[in-house]
Amino acid sequence: MGEFDLITRYFKRPTRRAALGIGDDCALLQPRPGTQIAISSDMLVEGRHFFADVDPRSLGHKSLAVNLSDLAACGAKPLAFTLALALPKVNEPWLAEFARGLFELADAHDCELIGGDTTAGPLNICITVFGEVPVINGKSQALLRSGAKAGDDLYVSGTLGDARLALEVFRGGASLSAAEFAAVRQRMERPTPRVALGVALRGVAHAAADVSDGLLGDLGHILTASGVGAELRLTDIHNSIAVTPILKSAGACFLPDFVLNGGDDYELVFTAPVSARADVLQAANLAQTPVTRIGTVTIGPGLVLLDAQGQPVALSSRSFDHFA
Amino acid sequence: MGEFDLITRYFKRPTRRAALGIGDDCALLQPRPGTQIAISSDMLVEGRHFFADVDPRSLGHKSLAVNLSDLAACGAKPLAFTLALALPKVNEPWLAEFARGLFELADAHDCELIGGDTTAGPLNICITVFGEVPVINGKSQALLRSGAKAGDDLYVSGTLGDARLALEVFRGGASLSAAEFAAVRQRMERPTPRVALGVALRGVAHAAADVSDGLLGDLGHILTASGVGAELRLTDIHNSIAVTPILKSAGACFLPDFVLNGGDDYELVFTAPVSARADVLQAANLAQTPVTRIGTVTIGPGLVLLDAQGQPVALSSRSFDHFA
Repeated sequence: MGEFDLITRYFKRPTRRAALGIGDDCALLQPRPGTQIAISSDMLVEGRHFFADVDPRSLGHKSLAVNLSDLAACGAKPLAFTLALALPKVNEPWLAEFARGLFELADAHDCELIGGDTTAGPLNICITVFGEVPVINGKSQALLRSGAKAGDDLYVSGTLGDARLALEVFRGGASLSAAEFAAVRQRMERPTPRVALGVALRGVAHAAADVSDGLLGDLGHILTASGVGAELRLTDIHNSIAVTPILKSAGACFLPDFVLNGGDDYELVFTAPVSARADVLQAANLAQTPVTRIGTVTIGPGLVLLDAQGQPVALSSRSFDHFA
Repeated sequence: MGEFDLITRYFKRPTRRAALGIGDDCALLQPRPGTQIAISSDMLVEGRHFFADVDPRSLGHKSLAVNLSDLAACGAKPLAFTLALALPKVNEPWLAEFARGLFELADAHDCELIGGDTTAGPLNICITVFGEVPVINGKSQALLRSGAKAGDDLYVSGTLGDARLALEVFRGGASLSAAEFAAVRQRMERPTPRVALGVALRGVAHAAADVSDGLLGDLGHILTASGVGAELRLTDIHNSIAVTPILKSAGACFLPDFVLNGGDDYELVFTAPVSARADVLQAANLAQTPVTRIGTVTIGPGLVLLDAQGQPVALSSRSFDHFA
């Protein structure tokens, strides 16, 4: 099978929104007036972001999910994406399952594939995703990292550390029941991008980022970009729904580290003014996504972890860095 | 050096056009009303698209050039691009030269880097480029592959086969003087995307594609998309400025194949009505890019090569296919 057959068989579909989709030198998107196009690009490399023997359907899901998560963190509604794919060889069953996982998630978010590239090479998946953000009275509704203000509440969506726990089981450093392992493995291999929450938080949150490299690291990006600090209440996090019973029962030794520094969560960390607490809850309900209040933005600078007695505890940030 | 330092040191620059550039979860572009965003994505893999020891400055140039060439083929004016980069290790002199070649070309086209991704992994460069195409009275001015009409003249820009000749020298199958080799190597390693010509051909050409996989293959895409055929006058091509004296003197054995099937030319192949011959010449002059009339679009289907006597000659299309 040649590259054009490969594209036609596995990836070409009728275009619903784009002015032009796959098959020309460029795709064409025509956004509405009063709209910004949000753009994010993520590359996944075998052995680095996924195991060589990963289920291809999960890989298709995750490749798009990590990009949709970036749109979510900007409050952007998904529109379309491009897929560049380097493959060691043409493995048709693998491609069919990869495309299945990819399009299941794409369809769930009404996000269409409009172009890309295929080539031979070590397995590498590069997706660039496009979303729309309204501009109202000249003001972008995008959620940026730079908008946090001292006094804001600090929130995180969903739960933290589950994907990291799954990785630990794969590495032999932890053991779980089959049902527990299946649950955390799902979090690692098929993360849920918090798109609906991001859209619902437009005009409510002051700043947001997605938790891809670990809570402390990604919160750190917000604090740096906003020129503020934060206090995180560690006990409140551990006793909240942000930490699953599976992680709690897996062993205390994993607890602070996996919650604070575990990568691959794809939750949203965000700040909102105290006056907007009811609006945050409404957004969470609308998006059917739990959120937990975990701290406060301070004049700062710096990030302080507080224990149950409100005393600072030693902080170890080991946010994921591909070259550290 | 960590990945964020790497981005800051080599790739972060002030944003001139985007509403938001590097450093958040997404970049934000706000196109004007009456504008389409043209999008293209190309992935370059070591050992496949470039030699491991290629000059990094040339590689930076070429990585963006092949994407700008797709914009050119659509008649789109470059706006911005994302860069996803997998690197085996952080090699600072290499990165500095890569960034230099990349930004020299980007600046020449006023095309700004607005985001992307960096990761460890086998060397892989994935660029997604964005350009703008005007929409006039509801009609897109984009040059598509699908617009060719029977009776159109067929044109190609610049010269064909030079990059393929350089590859042959590298492989030991041909030899050239040092000056000749430098010239064809320049065509292989630092191709010139025909952006100005693409823009100038808006409203003049009926259809266009860039010649990345070989003239016959890329012209074939136009013919298929347009539901037409073509006659190519082989002697006219060989006796025209579309074939350099270097290629002619390198040996008759290379001539038809390198011109017709040599990849990596990054010229434009396009069709325009006979009534627009003066307009095509004006566009070529405006863009300071030579063009050659090489044939005629027919009701078809199929592509026929004609010899000096106007007789059909056997055709071998071996357009580049990554998986064939």
